[in-house]
Parts: sequence; C-alpha cells; structure tokens
Amino acid sequence: MIKVLRLGHRAGRDDRISTHVGLTSRQWGADEIVYSGERDKSMMESQEDIIDRWGGDFEVSYTEEWRKVIKEFDGLKIHLTMYGERIDEKMDEIKEESEEQDLLVIVGAEKVPRWVYLNVDYNISVGNQPHSEIAALAVFLDRYQDNEIKEEFEGADIEVEPSEDRKITREK
Amino acid sequence: MIKVLRLGHRAGRDDRISTHVGLTSRQWGADEIVYSGERDKSMMESQEDIIDRWGGDFEVSYTEEWRKVIKEFDGLKIHLTMYGERIDEKMDEIKEESEEQDLLVIVGAEKVPRWVYLNVDYNISVGNQPHSEIAALAVFLDRYQDNEIKEEFEGADIEVEPSEDRKITREK
Repeated sequence: MIKVLRLGHRAGRDDRISTHVGLTSRQWGADEIVYSGERDKSMMESQEDIIDRWGGDFEVSYTEEWRKVIKEFDGLKIHLTMYGERIDEKMDEIKEESEEQDLLVIVGAEKVPRWVYLNVDYNISVGNQPHSEIAALAVFLDRYQDNEIKEEFEGADIEVEPSEDRKITREK
Repeated sequence: MIKVLRLGHRAGRDDRISTHVGLTSRQWGADEIVYSGERDKSMMESQEDIIDRWGGDFEVSYTEEWRKVIKEFDGLKIHLTMYGERIDEKMDEIKEESEEQDLLVIVGAEKVPRWVYLNVDYNISVGNQPHSEIAALAVFLDRYQDNEIKEEFEGADIEVEPSEDRKITREK
C-alpha cells in the first residue's frame, strides 16, 4: 500500500498543484492521498469527480493532524525534499526495506517544518535544485515502481485508446 | 540540445504550474523553455531570479508564434499527451532517432489544438489517465536521460549539500 501525504496546502494559491499531486499519485498506483494545511473542499471535490469518471479506488481525504499521520503510520516513511539524500544512492535500499511494508510518501508546499525531517525514515532528493514537488513525486514513484505506470482502473466510465495522432476515448 | 515548449499558458491560473514546468525542464538538463499562450512577465521574471541564483544557462523566453516554433524546429518533435502512444513502447525508438538530433518536447495546458498532434513526430503518453503535464514531462525526461539528474549548474550562488535530516546550503 502506498499513501501520499501533501503538507501545507494553501487554498487558491496551491489548488492546481495539489490536484496534480493527487492525480499523479493515482496514476503511479498510490492508494490514497491525504491533504493537510488549509481545508479545500472544492479542490478535493473536483478531484473526486475526475476519479469517479476515470475509475479506480484511489482515496482522497483531509486532516489537520498531519503529525499524527506521520507518527502513526506503520511502514516506511519517505519525505521528498531537494535537501535530502540523492535518490540514486538510496532507491535500492528503499525498495528492499519496503518490500514487506507499506510506504508513506510526504511532499510539502513552500516550508516544511524541521519536525518532518526528523520523524521520517528517509529524506530523499529527486534533484537538489528548486523545481516541483509534482516532478519529484512522479519520478520517485516511477522509479520505485520500476517504470510500471498503472493502466487498469476499475469501474471507469471512460478510457483512452492510445493513438499516434488523435484523441480517442471509449465510454464504457 | 533539448528545448521545451509550453503551450497555452493562462496568466494567474497557470502561473505556478508553468513555473514548475520550466524548473523541471532545467533540473532534467533541458537547455531552454519557450512559453506561449498569455504573456506573463512576472511568472517569467520570478523564474529567472531562481535561475540566476541557482546557476546554469537555462533560457526562458516567450513567443506568440508557437506554430512557428514547432514548424521550424530542426530535430525530433515530441508532444506529451495522455492520448498518445505509450512511452514504454516508444522510448527506445525516440532515443535512437534523437541520438544525432535536437529534441523538442511540447506540453500543453487544458486544450491542445489538433494541429499539434499532426505536426510532431510523436504523440506520447506518460500514462493514459488525467494527471499532470509536470509529472509527464519529468518522467519523460528522467527516462530519456537514463535517470541522469543534472547536478552541476555553472555560476550558481548557492547549492545544496544533500543531507540525511536537515537543510544544508552553501553560498558559493
């Protein structure tokens, strides 16, 4: 099981970024995203509408108590940050350690409290330059899943037929 | 040489997403990003401030004439879209074909005109679900570069020292 925790959401300013964080988690096979920071019902609802239509049982929820989510998670806890140890040097170890454990992946918005750095198993950088928590999460999950991108989403109303040069969707 | 073209930027609504697209391109070794859609000076300037501080010679520019950028590009042209052919099935071919050619990677915002699909060499999907152009771009570039994440940025004022549990930066 893979759970993603998004810290420090700011309504308005972060709504599209946080939506992308959720949908990226879903595409790479995570089971669940938990948002923290400001409660943003409309961001979560519009994401749930997409999920209803495109299928799968990805769960979206909100909590104020993000410290508790981290503390009480029974499994391997990874915080993605540009300040962390390099992904290249740690991925094998992470894969091995999480083989029989669940995985919690944490991504922050602008400022992440020091507490997070100290209460996870790994602080991992996907590049040490300022870029994007969406990019970091996508590449982390892509490598973690050995380049497996999830294709089947149960109960979908719609799916894409991959095409060379046009948009083809099938209503199901 | 890798150039990224961002289509259909909408000022305000897309500013953070488009900034992440630019910085992600830079992190994975692209040379240049060209924005199209609405001209957004403040988005571009704040990105240039980050680049000045963190180094490298990544170029940021704007054009109204995005069709011309595509038409006149001398090299391999890839459009990333959830409707395209699967990355797994095409990456080897793309790597081979671009060995002695420059690469143009195109990512859109909401609606991409059919013209784009017809005027590129490949329409490629990084997953066929709705998620994020930032995630698609990051994973495409990560795989294209054989998991090489760029580490050296010339002329940087600041750099990160990767750490197990804290933020360490060096002023240079």
